[in-house]
Amino acid sequence: MASSSAASSSRALRIGIIGFGPFAQFLAKTMAKQGHRLSATSRTDYSQRSAEMGVTFFRDVGEFIEAGGNEVIMICTSIMSLSEVLKSIPFHRLGRPTLFVDVLSVKEYPRSSLLQVVPEDSDILCTHPMFGPQSGKYGWEDLKFMYERVRVRDHETCSSFLQIFQKEGCRMLEMSCKSHDKLAAQSQFIAHMIGRILAEMGIESTSIDTKGFESLLQLKKNTENDSFDMFSGLFVHNRFARQEMENLGSALEKVREGLVQRMLEEQEKKPIQENDENTN
Amino acid sequence: MASSSAASSSRALRIGIIGFGPFAQFLAKTMAKQGHRLSATSRTDYSQRSAEMGVTFFRDVGEFIEAGGNEVIMICTSIMSLSEVLKSIPFHRLGRPTLFVDVLSVKEYPRSSLLQVVPEDSDILCTHPMFGPQSGKYGWEDLKFMYERVRVRDHETCSSFLQIFQKEGCRMLEMSCKSHDKLAAQSQFIAHMIGRILAEMGIESTSIDTKGFESLLQLKKNTENDSFDMFSGLFVHNRFARQEMENLGSALEKVREGLVQRMLEEQEKKPIQENDENTN
Ligand SMILES: NC(=O)c1ccc[n+]([C@@H]2O[C@H](COP(=O)([O-])OP(=O)(O)OC[C@H]3O[C@@H](n4cnc5c(N)ncnc54)[C@H](OP(=O)(O)O)[C@@H]3O)[C@@H](O)[C@H]2O)c1
Ligand SMILES: NC(=O)c1ccc[n+]([C@@H]2O[C@H](COP(=O)([O-])OP(=O)(O)OC[C@H]3O[C@@H](n4cnc5c(N)ncnc54)[C@H](OP(=O)(O)O)[C@@H]3O)[C@@H](O)[C@H]2O)c1
Repeated sequence: MASSSAASSSRALRIGIIGFGPFAQFLAKTMAKQGHRLSATSRTDYSQRSAEMGVTFFRDVGEFIEAGGNEVIMICTSIMSLSEVLKSIPFHRLGRPTLFVDVLSVKEYPRSSLLQVVPEDSDILCTHPMFGPQSGKYGWEDLKFMYERVRVRDHETCSSFLQIFQKEGCRMLEMSCKSHDKLAAQSQFIAHMIGRILAEMGIESTSIDTKGFESLLQLKKNTENDSFDMFSGLFVHNRFARQEMENLGSALEKVREGLVQRMLEEQEKKPIQENDENTN
Repeated sequence: MASSSAASSSRALRIGIIGFGPFAQFLAKTMAKQGHRLSATSRTDYSQRSAEMGVTFFRDVGEFIEAGGNEVIMICTSIMSLSEVLKSIPFHRLGRPTLFVDVLSVKEYPRSSLLQVVPEDSDILCTHPMFGPQSGKYGWEDLKFMYERVRVRDHETCSSFLQIFQKEGCRMLEMSCKSHDKLAAQSQFIAHMIGRILAEMGIESTSIDTKGFESLLQLKKNTENDSFDMFSGLFVHNRFARQEMENLGSALEKVREGLVQRMLEEQEKKPIQENDENTN
């Protein structure tokens, strides 16, 4: 059975993290709790934060690559900085074949980027944990974890890594990076768009909020907690997002037209009259 | 204390309902449960439905007015049909001073309409229960009930009516119809707009829905359960809605521009390269 064979391949891993921002720290907490040995490197100095979490921090990415001895290197940088970050990695200093994993919220882009730069003897796993510090605050049970085994020869290391999420109760979804991006443009990107639009409008709680409006306030708040870099990435590096953005614009236009049409019909019915609600 | 004086004025009322659609039936269920005596009239014949609920149904609005002997007449028609419905009521056949209550989701419009047609010796209470058959399915505890005592001399009948909602645990919010419409345009109307836009886009659940997107699917579903008449009414008869619609349009435009700008910056950085994610 899948679960027993998967369980048998679960073991403590040496995992190195590149980009130790909010999402990486969120993942690292659970990984550390599960007993994996973690190291990290980042643009910003997170020595203090890392020490508190039991993570070995390297200020220098070269040292991180050479000294870390990592079986897995997990890339957690922002979508917008991926190409810059990949350029900075001295892959030739890797001491061993390594599983490269990324957790970016778009998938075709890191997939093709990693295929270009990761040494031939190293493996590639592209993933998207469909949750974050807010939605995964109280555990990962039933939250979705998408992945594609892009280039995997060391199956044991790869399934040990996937086990991290399986153990926490995630719903494991194996699918192509392309399918992911298509679906994510229709769902996650739209949710972020709406959240950003509401933030741009400056919506605020009123004394008469309905349940529907309360859910929008929550969406706005969660969206604002994510960086603008992440939001931009969802658009700039997902080729399906442009179409969805256009759909959103046309739908707004259509709904608006429907309402204006209805208003004109009403105005025709009763010429002037009753338009003086203003005088109350 | 407010609660004890309010409680002392609570008693069974004879309540007549004009417009026995989904929302009226939803309210009637709780009113009947509390022991009030209900009658109704509507464009559609709801004799069967009414009998099942213990509500006396009149096909003819004149008979309803004359024979009902109602202390309270509650207007539950759609916003868009209010003026037509009010015209059809033979107010001169009322046997007694009556408290006219409306529950429309906009408030300045019924306020001014009722002030024009309700006989001078009858009272007017404008209300908006800020919930419906979906959000109030499991009770009204903590749900909001907005009202303005527009013209009240018979305080005892009015507070007996308000008690219906108080008893169920509603949060009672006394405010002017004008304040209501201003706030509702910024909250409820925006939520309905977003729900309608998402419906127009035809958003659907995907295998990788995030929590944020799930809340939008729910909003879309709830919005679609309300009639287009109600949605149109929120726009056509709330003078503050037009501005909010414009704000929504401009916010979408601004967010879009921000993203397109970011995309152009990226394209300038790396001329052609890597734009071939399509070929995976
Ligand atoms: N937040 C979520 O809910 C979530 C969920 C699933 C996947 N993800 C993905 O996880 C990744 C990290 O997300 P996040 O929430 O932590 O925020 P983010 O803003 O998307 O990324 C922050 C990370 O990117 C690094 N970074 C940004 N610009 C850089 C640059 N010019 N050079 C080098 N590094 C740079 C930051 O490094 P420093 O901190 O050192 O400055 C930090 O580690 C993103 O790809 C995101 O799409 C996020
Ligand atoms: N649904 C909610 O969650 C909610 C919450 C708070 C307030 N409200 C307000 O409650 C009222 C009723 O809402 P609703 O949800 O039941 O749906 P609605 O579509 O807004 O109104 C349906 C009612 O309007 C009547 N009606 C429509 N057109 C008419 C016409 N041309 N002539 C005569 N009657 C007409 C219908 O009569 P027939 O059924 O006899 O055809 C029915 O009683 C609305 O003003 C709405 O704004 C609704």
